[in-house]
Amino acid sequence: MTLGRLNHVGIATPSIDASIATYRTLLGASAIGVPFDLPAQGVRVCFIDAPNTQVELIQPYDDASPIAGFLRKNPAGGQHHLCFEVADIHAAVAALTAKGATVLGQPRIGAHGTPIVFVHPRDMGGVLVELMETPKEHG
Amino acid sequence: MTLGRLNHVGIATPSIDASIATYRTLLGASAIGVPFDLPAQGVRVCFIDAPNTQVELIQPYDDASPIAGFLRKNPAGGQHHLCFEVADIHAAVAALTAKGATVLGQPRIGAHGTPIVFVHPRDMGGVLVELMETPKEHG
Repeated sequence: MTLGRLNHVGIATPSIDASIATYRTLLGASAIGVPFDLPAQGVRVCFIDAPNTQVELIQPYDDASPIAGFLRKNPAGGQHHLCFEVADIHAAVAALTAKGATVLGQPRIGAHGTPIVFVHPRDMGGVLVELMETPKEHG
Repeated sequence: MTLGRLNHVGIATPSIDASIATYRTLLGASAIGVPFDLPAQGVRVCFIDAPNTQVELIQPYDDASPIAGFLRKNPAGGQHHLCFEVADIHAAVAALTAKGATVLGQPRIGAHGTPIVFVHPRDMGGVLVELMETPKEHG
């Protein structure tokens, strides 16, 4: 396994609409996707393109959302996870597990339509790391 | 102002050496810089290259370090800031200030040798954003 592209930075927000306005107005973001729901993951998301990676804005889909707890601790929002690409998600899970890391759940389809998993932050210096099989458009 | 490259993700850690081992062993990072001190900023840093951006590991240089408080709240470490590139740091500061954002201090020379500033997280949805004038090697 080699460290792949940083596909996106996940940022939790109580309001995707407010965050879009912030990134557009203050930072000059212009390539802003259309927000969409991922009910199976309990989130509504929106991708903003930077020239070399993306910001993923994440808003709870409902009260049972996995990011509801994060927003209770950080009501204004904040950095939630880092997503690095891997060539083969199952190989990555096997390698991490063999090294004693805790992979949270089984690979499932993420916001970009390819399989993802999360690695427990206690194994990654307090950082929640998502691993995503590289989308085809990146080769 | 247009949203520039994500130059790096800043990650606070109580031990750069331990974090280097984690990124190398678990994620397969191989392009790992030599850690160096920035005493004027109160931090020791180390850059790890991903194919499209960098991870900046940040360890307190001393007890007065600006990240000491972050580590008291997050003893294992965690995501600390996002650094986006801008073409002209003074123009960026003027634009942000005109829009009511709080820029923390005056531009100063950052870890990559170009001027940087930080924007207050309350203006950026709880995210500490660093703006860095684009290093020359990126054009």
